[in-house]
Amino acid sequence: MPVYKAPLRDMRFLLNEVLDFPAHYAGLSNGKDADPDTVNAILEECAKFCEEVLAPLNLSGDAEGCRIDDGVVTTPRGFKDAYDQYASGGWQGLSHPQEYGGQGMPMSLGLLKSEMTGTANWSFTMYPGLALGAMNTIMQHASPELKGLYMPPLVEGRWLGTMCLTEPQCGTDLGQVKTKAEPQPDGSYKLTGTKIFISAGEHDLTENIIHIVLARLPDAPPGTKGISLFIVPKVQVNADGSLGERNGIRADGIEHKMGIKASATCTMALENATGYMIAEPNKGLEAMFTFMNTARVGTAVQGIAHAELSYQNALAYAKERRSMRALSGKKEPEKVADAIIHHADVRRMLLTQKAVAEGGRAMIYFAAQYADHMVNGIVENDDAKYRHWDDKLGFLTPILKGFLTEMGLESANLGMQVFGGHGYIWEHGMEQIARDARISTLYEGTTGIQALDLLGRKVLLSTRGKAVREFTALIGKFAVEHMRNGKLRRYAADLARYAAEWNVLTMRVMLMARKDRDVVSAASHHFLMYSGYVTMAYFWALQAAVASQKLAQGGAETPVFYKAKIATARFYFDHLLPRAKAHAVSMVKPSKSLMKLPVYAFAFE
Amino acid sequence: MPVYKAPLRDMRFLLNEVLDFPAHYAGLSNGKDADPDTVNAILEECAKFCEEVLAPLNLSGDAEGCRIDDGVVTTPRGFKDAYDQYASGGWQGLSHPQEYGGQGMPMSLGLLKSEMTGTANWSFTMYPGLALGAMNTIMQHASPELKGLYMPPLVEGRWLGTMCLTEPQCGTDLGQVKTKAEPQPDGSYKLTGTKIFISAGEHDLTENIIHIVLARLPDAPPGTKGISLFIVPKVQVNADGSLGERNGIRADGIEHKMGIKASATCTMALENATGYMIAEPNKGLEAMFTFMNTARVGTAVQGIAHAELSYQNALAYAKERRSMRALSGKKEPEKVADAIIHHADVRRMLLTQKAVAEGGRAMIYFAAQYADHMVNGIVENDDAKYRHWDDKLGFLTPILKGFLTEMGLESANLGMQVFGGHGYIWEHGMEQIARDARISTLYEGTTGIQALDLLGRKVLLSTRGKAVREFTALIGKFAVEHMRNGKLRRYAADLARYAAEWNVLTMRVMLMARKDRDVVSAASHHFLMYSGYVTMAYFWALQAAVASQKLAQGGAETPVFYKAKIATARFYFDHLLPRAKAHAVSMVKPSKSLMKLPVYAFAFE
Repeated sequence: MPVYKAPLRDMRFLLNEVLDFPAHYAGLSNGKDADPDTVNAILEECAKFCEEVLAPLNLSGDAEGCRIDDGVVTTPRGFKDAYDQYASGGWQGLSHPQEYGGQGMPMSLGLLKSEMTGTANWSFTMYPGLALGAMNTIMQHASPELKGLYMPPLVEGRWLGTMCLTEPQCGTDLGQVKTKAEPQPDGSYKLTGTKIFISAGEHDLTENIIHIVLARLPDAPPGTKGISLFIVPKVQVNADGSLGERNGIRADGIEHKMGIKASATCTMALENATGYMIAEPNKGLEAMFTFMNTARVGTAVQGIAHAELSYQNALAYAKERRSMRALSGKKEPEKVADAIIHHADVRRMLLTQKAVAEGGRAMIYFAAQYADHMVNGIVENDDAKYRHWDDKLGFLTPILKGFLTEMGLESANLGMQVFGGHGYIWEHGMEQIARDARISTLYEGTTGIQALDLLGRKVLLSTRGKAVREFTALIGKFAVEHMRNGKLRRYAADLARYAAEWNVLTMRVMLMARKDRDVVSAASHHFLMYSGYVTMAYFWALQAAVASQKLAQGGAETPVFYKAKIATARFYFDHLLPRAKAHAVSMVKPSKSLMKLPVYAFAFE
Repeated sequence: MPVYKAPLRDMRFLLNEVLDFPAHYAGLSNGKDADPDTVNAILEECAKFCEEVLAPLNLSGDAEGCRIDDGVVTTPRGFKDAYDQYASGGWQGLSHPQEYGGQGMPMSLGLLKSEMTGTANWSFTMYPGLALGAMNTIMQHASPELKGLYMPPLVEGRWLGTMCLTEPQCGTDLGQVKTKAEPQPDGSYKLTGTKIFISAGEHDLTENIIHIVLARLPDAPPGTKGISLFIVPKVQVNADGSLGERNGIRADGIEHKMGIKASATCTMALENATGYMIAEPNKGLEAMFTFMNTARVGTAVQGIAHAELSYQNALAYAKERRSMRALSGKKEPEKVADAIIHHADVRRMLLTQKAVAEGGRAMIYFAAQYADHMVNGIVENDDAKYRHWDDKLGFLTPILKGFLTEMGLESANLGMQVFGGHGYIWEHGMEQIARDARISTLYEGTTGIQALDLLGRKVLLSTRGKAVREFTALIGKFAVEHMRNGKLRRYAADLARYAAEWNVLTMRVMLMARKDRDVVSAASHHFLMYSGYVTMAYFWALQAAVASQKLAQGGAETPVFYKAKIATARFYFDHLLPRAKAHAVSMVKPSKSLMKLPVYAFAFE
């Protein structure tokens, strides 16, 4: 069974040595309590809970899955108890305001928590995770009364929640949503329709489930401009907060999925379910998307979660399993064969996982600082501040979600590969990690949608390339600073070249797209992956620079930790970053190599 | 549920228009009966059986899996009946000699059959597939008596067989095999030991199962030079061919796997099981590897099988599912949204699948001609001929097995991706294809083993680069021939460059490896993938050349088929071949970026 140890050393390296979170938190209006000692204590306690309570339920949860019987969903053994511990530990409200009973910590600390719970047990983490989406939506858009009624039990973890967007005919294209909401004389609405793929839509963890539902008013214009947003509780809530009658929303079935089997994915039938509108009529989609960037960064975490878990366990196996001799000569002559970690190709796989887990972690923690500022903007009712940071986060979001989940999936598959045939066997848990990872490139916007969001919206439409110019300026600054440092020169030189090329490619695609709109879609995947590889390169160079400085200073407690950082950076620049070159070539090919083939000519019998 | 239509048009294009199989068969000693009409009739009948009988059992077989009860294994519903039809149709002996009751057709036709049965239902195909390995081994190495006893029922399909190599402590490193074989006074042996991962080790399809087992004689030297090869029947066979007593080999358990769930993967316990030695004592490993190239090409087929099946079903979905509008303007204005096949990024995924399925098919059919010659060498007892063609096949084998299974896995995942969230749901069958495909890079030698076999053995050790020079000469010839053809110039120019670069890279790695043996392993993965991309490029250019010639001639029945070939070649050169560049860069990096990190420095808590 896979084992999980929270990588606290690496997390602290990023927080304290690379990204200076102490200074960052000191600058936040809700960061005063997040002093280094408190942060450390929170991380350690969370790590313990994840290692001891959540991780041991991961494999058994996969075996058992969820059951549904007449609308009642049962989660796997141990989940209810683990959830009770999670809720009573105050974990759900870690980053929510104290006025609702939360601990008022910065958003980023919640992300670190999700990273650990998610690595230990992604299926489990889906239940509180979806509720966070519901909570954030309510917090920003609902009336004070609704907030007063719903937020405290949600923050307490006494209730959970969902996001009900997808319907059978549409997922990406939410303009096709059909669920209807009829206004009632008392100001409430009656909702009727079918929602599918609703994670945590029904379960036995909490007494109530608060659904956030997209639906259409009777007079709504067609398409995306006619969608409104509603709170639909599973059990009605009385004015005093006590529970009332069962509402007209129920689980009609749960999906039989490839992975995350312990997470109940429900089909929800709404039949005259009572709902309460939040946000303005017909502006539901915009409201729903307020926290989309943070939600998507939360899914990007899945990439590093599965890379980390698969890495830890593949590494342990590679140190134990013996096969053949190292090409450069016997490493363990007294044994029947050398441990497979002595084979370069096995190291290539392990180092890919390590580079993705640690490089991705740096990317996410960096973005989390933007998210902290953005949330501060919301809490302070400072719309300009909110928009400024949300825009900065918005550029990184599709890169993080799109690139890191693809790399996480690759890493999970490499972990299986290190196990050889044993990787295909359920008991070892490695194939489960790959199955669980597989959803991450599909939900919260597929990789293709992230790619289009990045190139089409964030780069070309909203900023005409400015977002790339701004971000590459950061990279260029690093390159200039380190170009004369013998130990970092090669990273600096490569980064300077890629930063310049990224801008050139952006301009070329922009010019091509003026004559041929299909280019935006044709180039999008390559642009996304290129952006991802270059961004991760920056964060590896940054880590190498800090490590190199620490070693130069001398007296480090664990010099080998820093040496490993430098070795991994070197590996990344030699074995992963060159892939960007292929994407650079393909990105600027004419769209006709994709679009010219008529639909009827794709296949012949 | 996924549907399968055998791609007969494409298969015929390769057989008759690109690779001239009629002339190839006419030149084989066992090819006279394989005239175009007969071949056509065989393909059509096989297609019908696969589409109507095997494909409908694929999803249900996955759901049901195999069961074991006290050593008795039950295959999913319908498998026994389908197998009976397969055997009575004479499919098992299609490419085996008439003296044993086979149809005496060339080996390559058997491969085409496996392609179709495997695409329709890979789990099913494992049962007859493993028996083919056993048959080939017996045919080449057993005594005339043993052949006379075992071959006819195997060729008839009345019995099936297995290859028992792997043990708990070793898979790749077979020198660690521990199973013991004690000689008996009557010339037989008593075998005791444990074999794991034995596909088709036990089942209810046939009355007997003939195991080929690797084991060690009491006085055997350690390591690979002390391994012998035995026939161990599940049920003893009397001298007259009738069945005798149950032998001491039994299934102790079946594996709970990620995919190919309808294929029983057994742990086999041998307790004083009677066996009969084939081949010479202590030379079992060599004998076992005689047909290794064909077996591995058989596994390479899995790459194109899953790419094809996933493509066919993703294509159907992409034509039906509607989401958003094409960037270049509405394509189906009367509908609520455009079919997703109108989005360039969806086409990128579909065309990747198509390029892999059809490009890989061309690679395999080309190699199959080598296999035909090799088998002719064996049948004619012409060792020089056998070795000549086996060597040529031996260079292509790791490229086919390593590269095509990796690409097949990518393609299967892209098929899921086209389905969006629905791809993750079991009922659609797309995630099963990805799970089934996942084994292909692990068994019959992992991708890492193929890479090492290619670079270490086939290129550097045995031929000092000659194998690359010979194969790239073919590519160079094509380039020269088509350099002045306006429609093919770009392919010819690219190919000429890559052919030259492939040789240069080979020399560079060879020189680096003289000083640093680890380079061979460090470069191997990149060398394999580079070789794969360039080889596939050659076969796409070849197809484009034939298509272009057919169009120039005019009067083609289906001109659009040829246009689609040219469009797919263009796509391949624009969107997949550039990946070779990344591998070229990484291949020649020093091994220290992989080897320098000490084992204890891979992780910190």
